[in-house]
Amino acid sequence: MAVGLEVLKNYHPVKGVRIGIAQAGIKYAGRNDLVIFELAQGSRVSGVFTLNAFCAAPVQVSKKHLTKADVRYLVINTGNANAGTGPQGMSDALATCEQLAQLTGVAAHQILPFSTGVIGEPLPMVKLLAGLPTALANLASDVWSVAAEGIMTTDTLPKGYSQQVEIAQLDGNSIDSKNTDLITISGISKGAGMIMPNMATMLAYLTTDAVIAKPLLDIMCKELADKSFNRVTIDGDTSTNDSCMLIATAQAEMAEISSKDDPRYGAMFDALLEAFMILSHAIVRDGEGATKFVTMEVQQAASVQEALDVAYTVAHSPLVKTALFACDANWGRILAAVGRAGVQNMILEDIDIYLDDVCIVKSGGRAASYTEEAGAAIFAQPEITISIRLGRGDITERVWTTDLSHEYVSINADYRS
Amino acid sequence: MAVGLEVLKNYHPVKGVRIGIAQAGIKYAGRNDLVIFELAQGSRVSGVFTLNAFCAAPVQVSKKHLTKADVRYLVINTGNANAGTGPQGMSDALATCEQLAQLTGVAAHQILPFSTGVIGEPLPMVKLLAGLPTALANLASDVWSVAAEGIMTTDTLPKGYSQQVEIAQLDGNSIDSKNTDLITISGISKGAGMIMPNMATMLAYLTTDAVIAKPLLDIMCKELADKSFNRVTIDGDTSTNDSCMLIATAQAEMAEISSKDDPRYGAMFDALLEAFMILSHAIVRDGEGATKFVTMEVQQAASVQEALDVAYTVAHSPLVKTALFACDANWGRILAAVGRAGVQNMILEDIDIYLDDVCIVKSGGRAASYTEEAGAAIFAQPEITISIRLGRGDITERVWTTDLSHEYVSINADYRS
Repeated sequence: MAVGLEVLKNYHPVKGVRIGIAQAGIKYAGRNDLVIFELAQGSRVSGVFTLNAFCAAPVQVSKKHLTKADVRYLVINTGNANAGTGPQGMSDALATCEQLAQLTGVAAHQILPFSTGVIGEPLPMVKLLAGLPTALANLASDVWSVAAEGIMTTDTLPKGYSQQVEIAQLDGNSIDSKNTDLITISGISKGAGMIMPNMATMLAYLTTDAVIAKPLLDIMCKELADKSFNRVTIDGDTSTNDSCMLIATAQAEMAEISSKDDPRYGAMFDALLEAFMILSHAIVRDGEGATKFVTMEVQQAASVQEALDVAYTVAHSPLVKTALFACDANWGRILAAVGRAGVQNMILEDIDIYLDDVCIVKSGGRAASYTEEAGAAIFAQPEITISIRLGRGDITERVWTTDLSHEYVSINADYRS
Repeated sequence: MAVGLEVLKNYHPVKGVRIGIAQAGIKYAGRNDLVIFELAQGSRVSGVFTLNAFCAAPVQVSKKHLTKADVRYLVINTGNANAGTGPQGMSDALATCEQLAQLTGVAAHQILPFSTGVIGEPLPMVKLLAGLPTALANLASDVWSVAAEGIMTTDTLPKGYSQQVEIAQLDGNSIDSKNTDLITISGISKGAGMIMPNMATMLAYLTTDAVIAKPLLDIMCKELADKSFNRVTIDGDTSTNDSCMLIATAQAEMAEISSKDDPRYGAMFDALLEAFMILSHAIVRDGEGATKFVTMEVQQAASVQEALDVAYTVAHSPLVKTALFACDANWGRILAAVGRAGVQNMILEDIDIYLDDVCIVKSGGRAASYTEEAGAAIFAQPEITISIRLGRGDITERVWTTDLSHEYVSINADYRS
């Protein structure tokens, strides 16, 4: 049921990144469920993690290890989230790092562990540790599409991004208009909701060979995630394991970008933003039971917070989501959701709402020009933008979401029945 | 599909209250859709209304009229919410009051209008006004069950409450242990979500002949609603028309209760609370597609706000709601929802979760004593209490909710298709 999502076949390898994959049999036999990223010495790694108070053991370990020395390996298992597993879960996550450290000759704190799958069951450590040598034995730079499949749980399609971008060189403190450096950006993500009994959930790994200073990379990773992964919602259920990693191996031939004042910064940010956007939107497109990919846009807000409050309230409204599924351009439900978003002193008569470019609500009531046929035509499309204009300021924010379909209920309710 | 909801057949009339009903044909011909409450002179009326910023025209008029002189009539139509109707909606709500005032000889501001039904369509004023004389012509004190049906929209069952209660008399400043006054409490409510295209939504009218001073009645109405109607949630979608009215006609033979210091106050509050609880829970029991009636209880919270934040986050989680529908005792989903409720410095290891009296999560992980069979047995019941113990304080709060079923999606998505 994925909406407008195609499988990426050709990935550009990223200098300084090799990937090893194994079938460890963590939940099912005969499927790739263990993925190791090997990063060249000198790679810079940034990450943002779930804000769920009960973040999983591997998330806690990864956050701690990120504050220490250079990261050299990421180890990712599917089939088990190692969340809600108490002290045993912490010691299992650490033991995974220690075993991989022994096999590779780095320190345990140079390794970041990630898990996704069932919550509350102990990691099958014997199987997981036995898979590590196999994954290391087949490290390669051209196996991205296998890795994208290797981190899936119940995603219906693998999710990937790969581009090469020309970044202008520097000429003193300015852009050199003639010469460019070629950099590569490749990444994969997984997630389709907190799907299946206890599945948890969103993982993303974006890599580039660009040379970006670590402090700047940290800032960029946060800002990029805020515009992409932190703006998508399927069911509003933040999982215990969400992680998004941005890796710059610094292997490209280019001068380092170390501050936002660098004239190349904007181009670098935009190139990475495209990767973040596509990989985060891919998760929505493959959302549980999704039949619609919806851009919820709030314009003319007085602040970013109120724009997001309105956008999320509408995006999470079960009544709006079921109307989307029904292709029913039900503006009363949208308006009622805007009204309960908690924004102070909002004036109904200032509100306009557009479906793509069709005005459906003007000054708080049905637009005179609106026809049911025009609304139905928009809502029949698989991709829709709902624009809500508050008439309070000049801030615009967007979030991306799906509809609520019978299939969503089936996926989440019928699985164990 | 209503869960544990029976139709009340016998209502006690309330001294000072007469009800008139008409078939005005507002949306459908041949059904009762116009209800008038006539209140004896000297009745005290309090109300709480939707916090939706875009409250409907009749809500705005009722709030304004409540600040003025004694209320003598309530006029309620179904089939049209008169919401999202702009200046025309305001003038229609006022015109309804004016016409009824002319017919009854009271002032227009002594009338409170209420509407429920489709959002965004103009009130059919000719039909509505034509229905007023009919409704007035058949005013009677014993037609509560007809009134309960007359305010329904797509509720599957009418919702009512009626009890007579002995309230001790006063002996100076103390309770007279021998003599009591008999008072009556009767009420009706409607609502089952913001159901059908644009339906809006929850209405409740609770009346008593008890003699309660208006300032105290205002305080009691707010406190009672906070414990009942403000603690139920089906889909989290606060409508534009929610109204809950508490009416004391002061016709009973008893000394007035005018402060919380009155020794009879506790008994009076508890008697009304039972009515508020039963009428608000009836709305959940008749919730859209409901197969479960769930008490979401948060214990050991440090504050009321954090208890409610956790309770509502879990109650609104689509993953928890679909698990309830599936009779799947999925504690990982509950735990993950608790973790994203935004409570600061929550410690996973302090969390216990009970299903009725079965401990499923102990110290943040699966309880050693828990078995799938025990959990499945609880979840197979139509009524369940989920208790979440935070280990942070001694505050307990409860909210009441339903599951998320295929039927919910059908009701909200398939209607116009």
